[in-house]
Amino acid sequence: MPDGFVAAGVECGIKASGKKDLAIIAAETDAVAAVVTTRNQVVGAPVIWCRKILPRGFGRARAFVISSGCSNVCTGKVGLRDAATMARLTAKALNARPARFGASDAGDDARGATRRPSITPENILVASTGVIGRRLPMDKIRAGIAAAAERLGTGGDADVVRAIMTTDAYEKSAVVRTRIGPKTVTVAGIAKGAGMIAPSMATMIAAITTDAAISAAALHKALKSAVAVTFNAITVDSDTSTSDTVAVLAGGAAGNRKLTARSPGCEYEKFAAALREVCAKLARAIVADGEGATKVVEIVVSGARSDAEAEIAAKSVGNSPLFKCAVGGGDPNWGRIVAALGKSSARVDPDRLRIAIGGATVFARGTGRKFDLGKIKKRLQGKDITIACDLGLGRGSFTALTCDLTHRYVTINADYHT
Amino acid sequence: MPDGFVAAGVECGIKASGKKDLAIIAAETDAVAAVVTTRNQVVGAPVIWCRKILPRGFGRARAFVISSGCSNVCTGKVGLRDAATMARLTAKALNARPARFGASDAGDDARGATRRPSITPENILVASTGVIGRRLPMDKIRAGIAAAAERLGTGGDADVVRAIMTTDAYEKSAVVRTRIGPKTVTVAGIAKGAGMIAPSMATMIAAITTDAAISAAALHKALKSAVAVTFNAITVDSDTSTSDTVAVLAGGAAGNRKLTARSPGCEYEKFAAALREVCAKLARAIVADGEGATKVVEIVVSGARSDAEAEIAAKSVGNSPLFKCAVGGGDPNWGRIVAALGKSSARVDPDRLRIAIGGATVFARGTGRKFDLGKIKKRLQGKDITIACDLGLGRGSFTALTCDLTHRYVTINADYHT
Repeated sequence: MPDGFVAAGVECGIKASGKKDLAIIAAETDAVAAVVTTRNQVVGAPVIWCRKILPRGFGRARAFVISSGCSNVCTGKVGLRDAATMARLTAKALNARPARFGASDAGDDARGATRRPSITPENILVASTGVIGRRLPMDKIRAGIAAAAERLGTGGDADVVRAIMTTDAYEKSAVVRTRIGPKTVTVAGIAKGAGMIAPSMATMIAAITTDAAISAAALHKALKSAVAVTFNAITVDSDTSTSDTVAVLAGGAAGNRKLTARSPGCEYEKFAAALREVCAKLARAIVADGEGATKVVEIVVSGARSDAEAEIAAKSVGNSPLFKCAVGGGDPNWGRIVAALGKSSARVDPDRLRIAIGGATVFARGTGRKFDLGKIKKRLQGKDITIACDLGLGRGSFTALTCDLTHRYVTINADYHT
Repeated sequence: MPDGFVAAGVECGIKASGKKDLAIIAAETDAVAAVVTTRNQVVGAPVIWCRKILPRGFGRARAFVISSGCSNVCTGKVGLRDAATMARLTAKALNARPARFGASDAGDDARGATRRPSITPENILVASTGVIGRRLPMDKIRAGIAAAAERLGTGGDADVVRAIMTTDAYEKSAVVRTRIGPKTVTVAGIAKGAGMIAPSMATMIAAITTDAAISAAALHKALKSAVAVTFNAITVDSDTSTSDTVAVLAGGAAGNRKLTARSPGCEYEKFAAALREVCAKLARAIVADGEGATKVVEIVVSGARSDAEAEIAAKSVGNSPLFKCAVGGGDPNWGRIVAALGKSSARVDPDRLRIAIGGATVFARGTGRKFDLGKIKKRLQGKDITIACDLGLGRGSFTALTCDLTHRYVTINADYHT
């Protein structure tokens, strides 16, 4: 984690397994935040809370509290109250800490107004991940928040990552450093998600911290453009969750001149690139950990009429069960790629289309090309596969990431029982 | 088959297995035809041929020649020539038959012009199904067409159905009779398709014959409206093929007063209902035979803002891998249904949404309802499952059919090798 942040992960009993299931990541001083949430029309109570406290997607914030094992989705009004309570309890616990949190007399609301303002519930981002449709065990959450707040420090990163995992097989984190003027800025992120989905689990969450000094609006702009080509470019099974949340907190401890979208000398662009790199690493790690996945497939579409059409075409391939099974089987079945491109709403002309698997052209000018089947099959046995589709119609491009569809995906998702 | 048609199915060696792989269905006299083809932008040569001879989707036709084992898709100009050759060979073989085909001196082109016109290639619909990207073995096709033409008769229906199958497990046929005025009209259909797709195979084909006397335009209208709620309402895996073709030939032997879309006494509507019923039975049979499928799931969406939005919502559920795995596992996982509805572009408001599985409400007013888990799980063990989703926003409705996603689907599509 960058300077200026503390965190802790604890087990409070939400997960029956007794694994860690609650984390707090907090800025030691006032920080700015930006958040991007799911496009699903059905959203969990924590997403509603984040949108309520940051209606434009950015503003001031102090901490991010995340629970796993129960997603607090489709839980009605009581669920909304529970999400607000998580924020309130976290704010209260942070105010109660001596250290550098809030005013020294924080919690004394009567006098707070004339002094440095204490942390309010509206400064706390909330996310929950896990089973849909069950109420959070609020007694456990209450104890967990208290325990986590007590243990906040700079050393427990691994605990924090583990506390946000559900069906994830691997821990996912990334750090990138960049020079902004004379200062070094750090961007660090953790994520969970075994694909876009997990068995009745509510999906991907990423918590990113940075010591950069940056305006909230610039932070949001950088986050949105990073998410568009990273988290929004991955698909495990097309099932967008009800809880996807990516949040970034910026504390400013790096001491750089405060960044805005118009900072001179490409300083904003350098920060945005670092943020994008962190998001890209976390997004790739989610696909690699996709349910049942054994391979990561990069689908590079170019030559589309627009970037938007390139994205539609790339995702049509990335979501095709036929294509994903073929990748799992190590079969260079270009007919399935052609069919998946053709069924999409992006304009495709087979006579202009060119498809390469692992660098070898397999389809051009409307028909299959001769290729070395043994060689391509060998390439498809690797863990990283690139499919390049040049639509030959324009300059639009997009790269999507997907994984193979295997027996284990079916096992995970069919054997799960409500 | 209705009166006025003959057919035959033969093995000509396209399939390595030696199974039947070529069929001709022919009207004994002039007939009208209507055809609906795939929406995929990449289409096979036979689809291009059918669109060329019936640019408006309807007109005069005499026969339908269908081969299986090789789809003639992505085969370039030579593939187009091959499809045209199939039509030419079929027309020639039909003209050469004595019987009631063409003029008695058919095949004698020099004198044909002054007599009853002989059958032209443009009277022959063509479809091929099977592997994408390989050229048809035209020598075998040539021999197959000759053999099939020789065996044309009214008794070989089972041979014809088998000759159009690829990975199908079951033969699919349906017959419906209806009274039009004082006459009985028969509508009979056969279909192939192990889902919307098959391993690199090119998908569903339905050939329907009727002895109704009907205008070509009315036949096309009836077919289009039937296909919209039958073949276009099914999904096995969202992978629209490059070859989907539904064609109907109407010979007129029933002797009813010729139908038009404005026939009095609901005569057109009665015929359209019979045609829809045949299409519905064949479409359901395709889903039941979906690759790896063990169950047929009817997703009934009502209360949408429009029928179009209802279709989008129903198909979003029907294509959700998560939902389909849950059905396979017999789990009443309503969270996955809610998420699949919410991710669609159809308007969904969880507070107005009501979901019932097998008649039992599991979700309403934004949250899960109490239900008898054991009872619903038992219902999910049946072969036919109904999921009803009332969006509570309008009067739009649509019913989609899908199947479960099982290990066998992955096996079929991963173990297949190019």
